[in-house]
Order: sequence, then C-alpha cells, then structure tokens
Amino acid sequence: MDQDRSCTSPRCRHALFRVCQNFFRKETLNKRVPISSWLPKYTVSTLFQDILAGFTVGLTEIPQGIAFAGIAGLSPEYGLYCGFMGGFIYALFGSCKDVNIGPTSIMALMLQDHISGLGPDMAITITFLAGIIIFILGLLNLGFVIEFFSYPIIAGFTCAASLQIASSQVKGLFGIPGKANAFLEAWESVFSNIDKIRLWDSVLGVLSIIFLVSLKEIRRFGTLQYREDWSRNRNILGIFLFMLSLARNALVVIIGTVISYSLRDDNPFKITGDVKSGFPPFEPPPFSTQVNGTNYNFRDMVQNYGPSLAFIPLVAILEAVSIAKAFSKGKPLDATQEMLALGLCNVMGSFVRSMPITGSFTRTAVNNASGVKTPLAGIFTSAMVLLAIGFLTPSFYYVPKATLASVIICAMFYLFDYDAFVVLWRSKKLDLVPFLTTLLCCLFISLEYGILIGIGVNLLFVLYASARPKLTITKEKISDSRGEVFVITPKDTLYFPAAEHLRDVVLTCEGENATVVVSGREIRNVDVTVAKSMAVFAKELVGRGQKVIFLDFKPSVVEVCVKVDLSLQKYFAEGPLDEIFENEPILSVQ
Amino acid sequence: MDQDRSCTSPRCRHALFRVCQNFFRKETLNKRVPISSWLPKYTVSTLFQDILAGFTVGLTEIPQGIAFAGIAGLSPEYGLYCGFMGGFIYALFGSCKDVNIGPTSIMALMLQDHISGLGPDMAITITFLAGIIIFILGLLNLGFVIEFFSYPIIAGFTCAASLQIASSQVKGLFGIPGKANAFLEAWESVFSNIDKIRLWDSVLGVLSIIFLVSLKEIRRFGTLQYREDWSRNRNILGIFLFMLSLARNALVVIIGTVISYSLRDDNPFKITGDVKSGFPPFEPPPFSTQVNGTNYNFRDMVQNYGPSLAFIPLVAILEAVSIAKAFSKGKPLDATQEMLALGLCNVMGSFVRSMPITGSFTRTAVNNASGVKTPLAGIFTSAMVLLAIGFLTPSFYYVPKATLASVIICAMFYLFDYDAFVVLWRSKKLDLVPFLTTLLCCLFISLEYGILIGIGVNLLFVLYASARPKLTITKEKISDSRGEVFVITPKDTLYFPAAEHLRDVVLTCEGENATVVVSGREIRNVDVTVAKSMAVFAKELVGRGQKVIFLDFKPSVVEVCVKVDLSLQKYFAEGPLDEIFENEPILSVQ
Repeated sequence: MDQDRSCTSPRCRHALFRVCQNFFRKETLNKRVPISSWLPKYTVSTLFQDILAGFTVGLTEIPQGIAFAGIAGLSPEYGLYCGFMGGFIYALFGSCKDVNIGPTSIMALMLQDHISGLGPDMAITITFLAGIIIFILGLLNLGFVIEFFSYPIIAGFTCAASLQIASSQVKGLFGIPGKANAFLEAWESVFSNIDKIRLWDSVLGVLSIIFLVSLKEIRRFGTLQYREDWSRNRNILGIFLFMLSLARNALVVIIGTVISYSLRDDNPFKITGDVKSGFPPFEPPPFSTQVNGTNYNFRDMVQNYGPSLAFIPLVAILEAVSIAKAFSKGKPLDATQEMLALGLCNVMGSFVRSMPITGSFTRTAVNNASGVKTPLAGIFTSAMVLLAIGFLTPSFYYVPKATLASVIICAMFYLFDYDAFVVLWRSKKLDLVPFLTTLLCCLFISLEYGILIGIGVNLLFVLYASARPKLTITKEKISDSRGEVFVITPKDTLYFPAAEHLRDVVLTCEGENATVVVSGREIRNVDVTVAKSMAVFAKELVGRGQKVIFLDFKPSVVEVCVKVDLSLQKYFAEGPLDEIFENEPILSVQ
Repeated sequence: MDQDRSCTSPRCRHALFRVCQNFFRKETLNKRVPISSWLPKYTVSTLFQDILAGFTVGLTEIPQGIAFAGIAGLSPEYGLYCGFMGGFIYALFGSCKDVNIGPTSIMALMLQDHISGLGPDMAITITFLAGIIIFILGLLNLGFVIEFFSYPIIAGFTCAASLQIASSQVKGLFGIPGKANAFLEAWESVFSNIDKIRLWDSVLGVLSIIFLVSLKEIRRFGTLQYREDWSRNRNILGIFLFMLSLARNALVVIIGTVISYSLRDDNPFKITGDVKSGFPPFEPPPFSTQVNGTNYNFRDMVQNYGPSLAFIPLVAILEAVSIAKAFSKGKPLDATQEMLALGLCNVMGSFVRSMPITGSFTRTAVNNASGVKTPLAGIFTSAMVLLAIGFLTPSFYYVPKATLASVIICAMFYLFDYDAFVVLWRSKKLDLVPFLTTLLCCLFISLEYGILIGIGVNLLFVLYASARPKLTITKEKISDSRGEVFVITPKDTLYFPAAEHLRDVVLTCEGENATVVVSGREIRNVDVTVAKSMAVFAKELVGRGQKVIFLDFKPSVVEVCVKVDLSLQKYFAEGPLDEIFENEPILSVQ
C-alpha cells in the first residue's frame, strides 16, 4: 500500500512513465522480449516444423529428466517439474531458436552434494537464488566472468563430470545396490558389491546401450532435408531413420518399460517405483525447511549451499551461453539477454518446484537437427512434459533402472571430450596442465574446487607472462670513443609483476662507461610500480658510473614516470641513438 | 643409526663426497657462506668502523626490541631474545653489509592476533615454522612471489600497519588503561577512557616525542665523513650531533628511566615492571604448549596460526629482500641467498625463544649511516643485546611506558608513507584503487586479508588487460570489384581471457562480400582457447558468406592453430594484401 501511494506522486509517475516508454520502444522490446520480433511474422509452415521439433525434444527430455533427477538424488517427478517452465519462459525471452532450457546432467551433479538426504526443498530454493544471481549478473553485464573458463578448463570439467556421472550409473546398469555417487566411492561400491550383480538388469542395461549406440549411429543414413540424389522411398526411409535416431532415448525407455510391465508379476528388473502424479503446486520457493526433524532457516540453507551458490549460476551461464553461441551460427549473440532469460527461467521454475535448469547441449542439438524454426518449439516441448506429468506418471512406475542408467551412460559417452587430450597434446602441451589439473581436481576434490583451481592455474600462465615479459638485449657499438651500449627492448606492456624482472635485467648490463638504453617503443602503458622501478635502477646505474637513456617512450608513459619521480625527466630521449649521443648533455652523469 | 649405516656404503659415501666437494668449491662457498669471501680480507680499520656501527645499531635495537615485544603482546625480555641470533647468523650467511635482522614492528603486529593471551610458546613455534618456510622458498627459488606485492600494495600495507601500531600506542603515551590493539578498538578505548588520562605520563610522552623528533632533525647538522669546508671543531661537533641523532632512541629511554628511577618512591609514571633476567635457554622450539590449563598440540598450534603461516614468512621475505635491494646500491642482489640467511636466522632464533625476525628498515639505515663495512657489525650489535640481557634487565624495571610509546609512535611517523597518496594521485589514479583497498582492508579486516584482497584487486588490472587486449580495426578498399576489407590488428599476445572478445569484435565486421583480415604481426603466442575461437569465427564468417584471412602470423602461432583445427590452414597468408587478393584461391569460400 505504502509503495502504491508513493508511486502516485506526479514526479514518480513521470519517471515510471519514461521507463515504460523507453522499454516499449520497438528496438528495446524486440531486444528484451524477442518473441515480439518474430511472432508477428509467424506462419503455419513454421508452426508445423516447430511442433515436430518440440515433440522430438520432448521425447528426449522426459526420460532425461527422470534420469537426471536420480543423479541429483531427487525422486523422478522432480525431473519432470523442471522440464516445462524453461520452455515457456525461454520462448518469450530467449534469442536463440535452438536452445532448450531444462534439466542437465551437470547441474544435477553439482546439486548432488547439497541435497543428498536433505530433501527437494534445498534444490528448489537454490533454483530461485541461482535465478536471481544469474539475472543480476545479466543486468550488470557481468557475464564476462565466464570468459575465464578457458577451453582446457571446460574440457577438463566436462570430462570429469561425465566420468563421474557415468561411474555413478554403473551400479544401476548392473543392478548392484549402493548409493555412492562420488567417482572413487562409486567404483569402490561397484567392486565391493560385484557379487551382487543381477543378471537380468545387466542384460537389459547392456542391450539398451547397444540399442542406443546403434540408433545414434543410424542417423548418418537418415536425413531431414529432401535429398535430390535419393529416390522418393529412400527419402522417406531417411526421414524415418533420422527421427528414429532422435527419439532413441524415449524409444529405449518405452521398450524397457513395456518389457518390465509385461513381466510385472515376477519382475526381474529393479524398477523406478512410485512417481508422484499430478502437477506441482504454483507457490513461492521454500525459504525454510524441515529435514528429519531439524529446522533449517534461510541462513542455514544458504550455509549448506556454500560455494555452490556462486558455481551453480556460473556453470548454468556457461552452459547456456556457450550453447547459444555455438548455435547462433555467426550471428553475434546478446549474452546479456541470454542471462536475463536464463535467470527468469530459474526464478519462475522455482515456483513449480524445479531444480536448477540451464541450456542442454543434447536437446538443443536434437532441436536443431529436427529443423526448429523459432523458440516457440519450446512451448510444445513443455506441453509434452506437462502431458507426461498429467497422464504418464503411473506408467513410469515400471521404468527399469537399468534402462535409465543406460540412457545416462550413453549421454555421458558423447559428452566426454575425447579430442581434448589429443588436441592439447598435439598443439600446445602447456595447456595440458590446466586441463589435467581441472580434470583431476574435479574428480577427486569437487567440481567447484576443480574449476576454481583450474582457473587459478590457468591464470598463472597469463600472470607469468606479465611477470616475465619478453625483452631483447642487444649490444651495440656507436663509436670507438665510448663504451658499450646495451639496448633493452621490452616487447609488451609492463605491469607491476614485471618491475623487478626489468630491474634485474637492466642491472646485468655492466661495463665501464657502458650505456643502457631502454627502448619504450612497444610499451603502451606502465603502472606506478614499474615507474618506481625505473627510477630506482636509473639511479643505481648512474651511481655505478653508467649512463641511461629511456628511448622513444610514449608521451603518456613519460608523463606517468616523470610524475612518479621528477628526476627521471632527464633520461628520456627520442630519435636515432647516434644523434642523441652527439647531444651529450642529456646523458651527463649527475 | 640406520641412517649412519646406510651412508657408509661406498656409493653413498661417494655421492656425499661429491656434494661436499661441490659445496666447498670456492665460488659456491663464497656465494652460500659469504663470510668466507670477506673475512680473509678483513682489516683493523674495518673492525673499528664495524664496532662503531654495531654499537650504534645496538642502542636502537634494545629499546625497539622491548617496545616491539609489547606490540606483539609479549613481555619485554622477548624483545631482547629476538635481538641477537639474527646478527650472528646473518654475519655468516648474509650478503648485504647494511642489513640488520631482528624484531620489527610489522612482524610484531602480524603476530599479535595469534598470541594474545596464548603466551610466548605460540610466537616461538611460528618463528621456527616461518624460518623453515622461508628457507624452503629460498631453496626452491620461489622468492618471486613477492613480486606480486606491487608498490600500491606495499604502500597501503605499510600505511595501515603504521597507523594501527601508532594507534595502539596512543593510550600508552597518555597512561590510559586498556588493552585494545586493533585500529578501531584502540581509538574507541582511548575515547571511552579519556577521563583517565594521567598527567605525568602525558607530559613525559609528549616531551619524549619532541625530544625524538628534534634529535632526528639534528642529524642534518651532523656528519660522519670529515668535511673539508668545516673547521676541526665544527667537524667534531658534527660527528657528535650525528651520533647523538642515531642514538636518540636509547637516549630517550635512558633519560626517561633515570627520571623514573629518581622518582621511584612516589613514581608518577606507568613503568615496564619486572623484566625476566638471564639468558634464554638454548632448546628446540615447543611443539606443544599449555595455556590456562588447555593443552595445544602441534596441530592445534598450526590451526591457531591459520593464514599467518603463509603471510608471516612472505612479509618477512618482503621486508628483508626489499631492504637488502635498497641498500645493495646497484649491485645485483642474490635474493635466494637472502632468503636462506633469513630462514636460518629464524630457525636458529626459535632455539633461543625469539619471535619472528626480519630485516629492519630503521636499524639498517642506522647501520648504513654509521659507516658499517661488513656484516660483522651485526655480531657487535648482538653482543650488546646479550650484554643488556645479562646485566641491564633489572634497570629495565623503571623504563616508563610512555617513553616506549613515544619511541614507537615516532618510528611509525617515519614509516608511514605520506608520499604514496600524492604520487599515485598525481601520476596514475587507477593505482589508487589497490592502494586504498589494501589500506582499508588491512585496517578494518586484518593485515593478511588486506594484502590478499589488495593483490587480488591489483591482479584484476593485469587480467583485464589480457581479457581486453588493445586491437585496432581499419576499413580498407582494395579495389572497386570487391566489398569492404576490415583489418583487425591485435596489439598484444592473446591469452584465453581474450578469446571471446576477439570473436565478438570479428563478428561485428559485417557487410556483403566483406573480407575480414586478422593481422598477426604483433601476436607472439596464442593458447588453444584462442586458436579454437579463431577456428569458430572463421567458420562463422565463411558461413555468412564473408572471407577471412589470417595475415602474417608467426610460424609458431600458425602451427598451434593448424594443429587445433586443420581447416584453419587455408586461411593463413603472408605478404601485402594486394598480392593476396590477386591469388584468389586461398580465399575461396568452401
């Protein structure tokens, strides 16, 4: 009420009016609510293509959602709850037609540590908080932080995540009991329970994997575009094979479920069990929760999230933005808009009990391959997920766990970046260091610290380069009458980590009556530390009876140096060395 | 025993022999035990100069030691215990004649948080550990880490430390009770107890400060070198004034103590009280301790030190190495040897109950001003401190606390870096950011986090520069028949934080049939992330129907790029643009 009242004051109303006016200017509206730019031009043929793509993606999203909820340690219905809000919101605010926002294996894995045993409320509240953080980072244009995720870091992180997720599913594939999810524990649990392998689960799991891999490979015999060089029948077959390949995850789950259902009286498989039916309530995320009789208030929850509160938003941005970039095909991408959209997807998702969501590479690729035309396809995907929540939950009861495990393991097989090691080894072995550091730390410490340590190690390279800038030293002889002339040319801008190095190098230039020339031609900038260092070594050289010239420095650099130490003025000179040496006074020793 | 036996095997004996032989080669010996190079040439006249300098420094060290022990929160005798081992060890291993290793105000301040109320054992063990760490850093040649302490960081840190130390002494100066040492607390305590100001303490304190400042300033009328332009008597007066000025700390303490002693029956001053007499035992540092009935084992002690375990060694290295550099006057300094010597000083110091020690700027300056010739002077300083421990401790009972406070406050007055703000403001305002960040964080959080945050902020500048390298874009017209030609020239080496920026810039070069030329002339190096980004935007441009040329890249850079993505090969070209355009095939769109 108070707020309402204050906003009816004329001045306030005017300001509000201007903000609204500005927002509803056509360009701003098209930029911030992209649907306003493409919906007016929407056609019926586009609609059909979007429906086809949307449904195909839905067929992938439903089994993935159920499986990923398992990775996070949540019951299956949560995988569906997080599958529909992203599609609706992204259709309004997203700028890249292919992107599908929903559950991803990496988000699920990052969540795992913080909700295992603590129930779904923990997951939902972090969805809300992550959404807010992503939105704010977008508003403040701070998305550039993900530029510090270099290729070796991303590759190492992805490899570690896929290894860890796949490892956690091995026991599911063979029906081995156990709950361990961390990499080492998972294998330990598999080997210590190896006698408990269940025959039929293993058979189903292995067959499912073979089925999935075959269907994945079958795509190369298919097509979506009509091919002139093929006969009509071959083209129809091509389209069929192509769609079959795209829908393989759904197919394997359906077939597995049908088998499991038909054997229901004496079921030889471990099955998913009860999946809560009905739509989630639309309500604000819980800001306090109770787990096993312990109350967690908001502060306790935040404490439980710890560094994930920074890393879940960052990794979400990283996934969404890099996928959007990959599929924007040369069009410049508005990363800010992507972050705003992603933030809204998560905030709104938290109202329908969603876990954190972001762009999924698999489903975005399926979307693209299915010929999606606009983000509207997401609405059809979401509609399918909603249908599944409404009508299919009873049938999920019989989904064999081994099948879900096979879906995840196959996805991880293609997520794992095999090339990374080869590319890095072949092209630049030094970049293996951040790659392996990230990979090993992610596997054996935690994903968050793995990224952090990896980025730290990688930044050391950049810092080392600034601490040891390349510089050349040449010895010249100007005339017989004077001693040696050393010319030192730093090849880069100098920052403070280089200050001591420069001084050490300069002081090695010894010799009776020798002159040290520091060439500033390639120095664009110095900071005060470097300027101080220059003043110190200039005095030291003069004290040794040597001469100093700072040659051809940029005026802006000279200005900084002279303001740091006025006595530096007399050492600066310009022009060819010979001429300077004729003009002796500049060089006079104090 | 086991070790002995294994070392008598012939092969082992041989290896040992070779190591010894290598060590005792003259150059190595002179480098690692510098006394071996200068002692053989030692003369009687040098001896007299060293004795004079050593005693003058001793006169400063004794009152400083007692005062600094108070800053650390230890009883006065500990200030003496840490005053003699440094001199002995540095005389053997130190390479810079002026340096005096002993208690410093900053080390005392850094120790304060970790031993207040926990007794001296905590201080002695960290001396040992810091010594080991410094020694290892020296062995591993890792001293370069202090190059990340830029001038703004050091200035901010020094200003904060001097402000904090001076603030903690204000109450001592006026005889106000209270124990607070942190900056804000100290002033709070002064103002809340302002009614408890003691008249005679204040009078003594203020007079002592006036006395110290006057004697400091008197030095400009003195001399140590015989001046031809002065009469004989003026020269004698000059030497007297000079030595008076150097011995001012001792003088003010002696005068204060005499006054305090003569008024002993009705002493109007707060006095130091009992100082434990006798030499400290020579024994290993305590690896467990008991405080107020609580047992602390080694692990608990280490936990109590926390990040100080990294920062005390680093700041000790920073002080010692920068002082040694400042006084080595143009001779290159062997920082490794300084670190080894400093490490040994601390390790050996911990055997005589010393707190962490490092190079003292004040005493090194006094040493230099007194005409020190070799590190042997340190032995005379140490001898004086030992004499004080042996015979003078009873007389320290009457040292007025206000006098000690005045000694510290005057030292801090000269430690505070007034110039820093002016220099930074005038020459480069951007460098005020790390300066003020460090200053404020050191004052209001803690010295350790202040340094860490300051370095972090300052490194952001370096990283920002590598994320947004300067690049120029020019538009050229080669001939009428073709579209625009954009020439993009990055001005620096490209590291991964720049990869996305480069791509974004390249993709802004739009235009029908437009060619994008990326000039590699100033790129010395790329990493895999940048190479990947080049491959991506090259394909994106070609996909848009544009042409790409990577012009004049260094062969090593071309190699990395091609190995990352073979398809990049065809975009590389060399030579003037006109010629390349005649040779059309290179540019053909796939």
